[in-house]
Amino acid sequence: MLNNKALQVPYGTRDVLPGEAGARRIIENKLASTFKAWGYDEVVTPTFEYLDTFAAAGQLSDSSFKFFDRRNNILLLRSDMTTPLARLVATRLNEGPAVKRLFYLANLFRYEETQAGRQCEFNQAGVEMMGAAGPSADAEMLALAVASLQAAGLNDFVISVGQIDFINGLIEAAEVTELQAQELKRCLIEHDVVRLEALADGSRMSPEQKDLFKELPFLHGGLELLDKVEACGLNNKSSKAVQDLREIYALAEVYGAAGYLRFDLGLLRDLDYYTGMLFEGYAEDMGFPIIGGGRYDTMMENFGRSCPATGFAIGIDRIMLILSRRRQLDNISSWDVLVAWQAGCLPQAIAQCMRLRRSGKTVKLAAEPFNQSEAVDAQRANACDTLLYIED
Amino acid sequence: MLNNKALQVPYGTRDVLPGEAGARRIIENKLASTFKAWGYDEVVTPTFEYLDTFAAAGQLSDSSFKFFDRRNNILLLRSDMTTPLARLVATRLNEGPAVKRLFYLANLFRYEETQAGRQCEFNQAGVEMMGAAGPSADAEMLALAVASLQAAGLNDFVISVGQIDFINGLIEAAEVTELQAQELKRCLIEHDVVRLEALADGSRMSPEQKDLFKELPFLHGGLELLDKVEACGLNNKSSKAVQDLREIYALAEVYGAAGYLRFDLGLLRDLDYYTGMLFEGYAEDMGFPIIGGGRYDTMMENFGRSCPATGFAIGIDRIMLILSRRRQLDNISSWDVLVAWQAGCLPQAIAQCMRLRRSGKTVKLAAEPFNQSEAVDAQRANACDTLLYIED
Repeated sequence: MLNNKALQVPYGTRDVLPGEAGARRIIENKLASTFKAWGYDEVVTPTFEYLDTFAAAGQLSDSSFKFFDRRNNILLLRSDMTTPLARLVATRLNEGPAVKRLFYLANLFRYEETQAGRQCEFNQAGVEMMGAAGPSADAEMLALAVASLQAAGLNDFVISVGQIDFINGLIEAAEVTELQAQELKRCLIEHDVVRLEALADGSRMSPEQKDLFKELPFLHGGLELLDKVEACGLNNKSSKAVQDLREIYALAEVYGAAGYLRFDLGLLRDLDYYTGMLFEGYAEDMGFPIIGGGRYDTMMENFGRSCPATGFAIGIDRIMLILSRRRQLDNISSWDVLVAWQAGCLPQAIAQCMRLRRSGKTVKLAAEPFNQSEAVDAQRANACDTLLYIED
Repeated sequence: MLNNKALQVPYGTRDVLPGEAGARRIIENKLASTFKAWGYDEVVTPTFEYLDTFAAAGQLSDSSFKFFDRRNNILLLRSDMTTPLARLVATRLNEGPAVKRLFYLANLFRYEETQAGRQCEFNQAGVEMMGAAGPSADAEMLALAVASLQAAGLNDFVISVGQIDFINGLIEAAEVTELQAQELKRCLIEHDVVRLEALADGSRMSPEQKDLFKELPFLHGGLELLDKVEACGLNNKSSKAVQDLREIYALAEVYGAAGYLRFDLGLLRDLDYYTGMLFEGYAEDMGFPIIGGGRYDTMMENFGRSCPATGFAIGIDRIMLILSRRRQLDNISSWDVLVAWQAGCLPQAIAQCMRLRRSGKTVKLAAEPFNQSEAVDAQRANACDTLLYIED
């Protein structure tokens, strides 16, 4: 008696069927080529890490899949790629250039309530640039983000750019408690505007500071937004953050990427390792970000090799979903030729298949003898553009 | 204090470093193109399945990684790809052609004592052809196996071809107990010649049967071997198995693949689902098979959809290891141009990078200003073929 579960895939996972899998390979290869053209080199890390690795990075989350190995070590299906890459760079890449540019295409795992665009097993393409500080590296991230999304087939997306020190500067100036600061940040991540207002009103901030905090979720705009907030009288930390964004933006203009950017000065991300510029990209028809990244200058310390770093990750499944909804996925589930054969003619049919393949054609060989009318039906069922029928 | 484990990869896993990862992408794409040219369509299945799925297929092994989901279902990191593909075909692919040709590139997981070429996480490329019986489909497997290994860059390999019913026929004829039959098979899998002789001698087989059993591990050869065993007086099952091998071989000759084949009439494989022709491929310098496969006509029944099937899997890591030892791996860890820049010239340098990338070049941009002599050092450290130095 067949157990019902035997026929199902686990919760939050899925089969990628013929056609879609091929389209994904094409998109992944386009991304890999783009990363390579920008100087990045591919690495692959294990699907699971010791729990200690994610713990060292401060990236242990309730939503990770954990299990024991035979020596009672706790293993964790990777829930993020920045942590494994930081471990790899710290332990394995002591030679080569001072600045490491790396990319990956990987599947990741998190327990999630699933929705379209959110699964427990999901795929990311991403880059990390380790060893480079300053606006030049951050601008390269934004420009490569734009180039990558374009290479994947998207053009109508927006990248929101923030700077965590802008918010940290406001919090410093407001002199709130550490607990209040954490809660303010959580409100920004969760876009909980009502709670944010209550928190600001209940604090001992100045009226101007309260107004700025309440406005944070709505501080979206171009360069004029930076002028506006600077006129509010920022402290040194916030002011430097704005200056950093100006320099990054100016370089993004040289890259031709600025048209996709808008500032979002209240932007924070779930991952708490960002230390400078950070960003998220959105496309129409998709409630979740399709790309996210930023600067994380303290992560590498966790692995005993302090160095500045910046990077991003693209949600492959989300891009596939958008392209699929727009019917823009490459359809590669077709072949050039079906070679069908009359009973007794299999050897000739095989010879024709091999000749066609040598000339670069994609060819299916009929698995059994067909008469001509069956062969025409099989050609259609097998999605072959032409039929070669072999008879005596 | 940094836990020592935090800097390590789990036992039996490894990081694939820059260069090797790119070479693997190239090989995987060559295999994907070959499979596509032969009429196969890619699918991707989840990294883990319900334990019930592998249990239904009779493929639960002690060496699999298991864990619980939040609903207390047991999940299993896939230890084999034939089982997930059988589930997928049975549940998801009711439409389309009667014969399903599918391929995959996947990572798999088994607890193993690790050695060069044997890891706990490893990579396979494989094909499955479901719905086709007979020598035509089996010959396609052998010919595609040869074409795939050639596409991956190998030429000096040998594929051993057996037929499980040849052995089953001998066992029937010998009228040994079920327990003895199991032990005879284990001896063949483990090449335990001493125990095999003892078992044969201790049984009530005829002297001729005993001799044939003792010879089984050494029945390697070409067509002359088939003539030789047929002259021994086989029962119907063994005789039909030899006839099947003759027909498969004749078609393999038409494909131009027969030169890589030799018969191995004692061949059995660890996976116990094979029901007909089966094979393993070996290359010099590698003690483990680099490819293995065969016919498994009863697997699909386990998922409620009985149909004949045949397939194979290639060990990607083993192929990479062989090519690496022979220094035949594509080295793609180099770039066309390093664009370095004098302080103040970053915008011009960015513009040059973008121009070069648009013309198809792979380009690294220096992450900080360099003088000319530093730029020359950086060109070397960054493995760039040429240097473009931007100054006022």
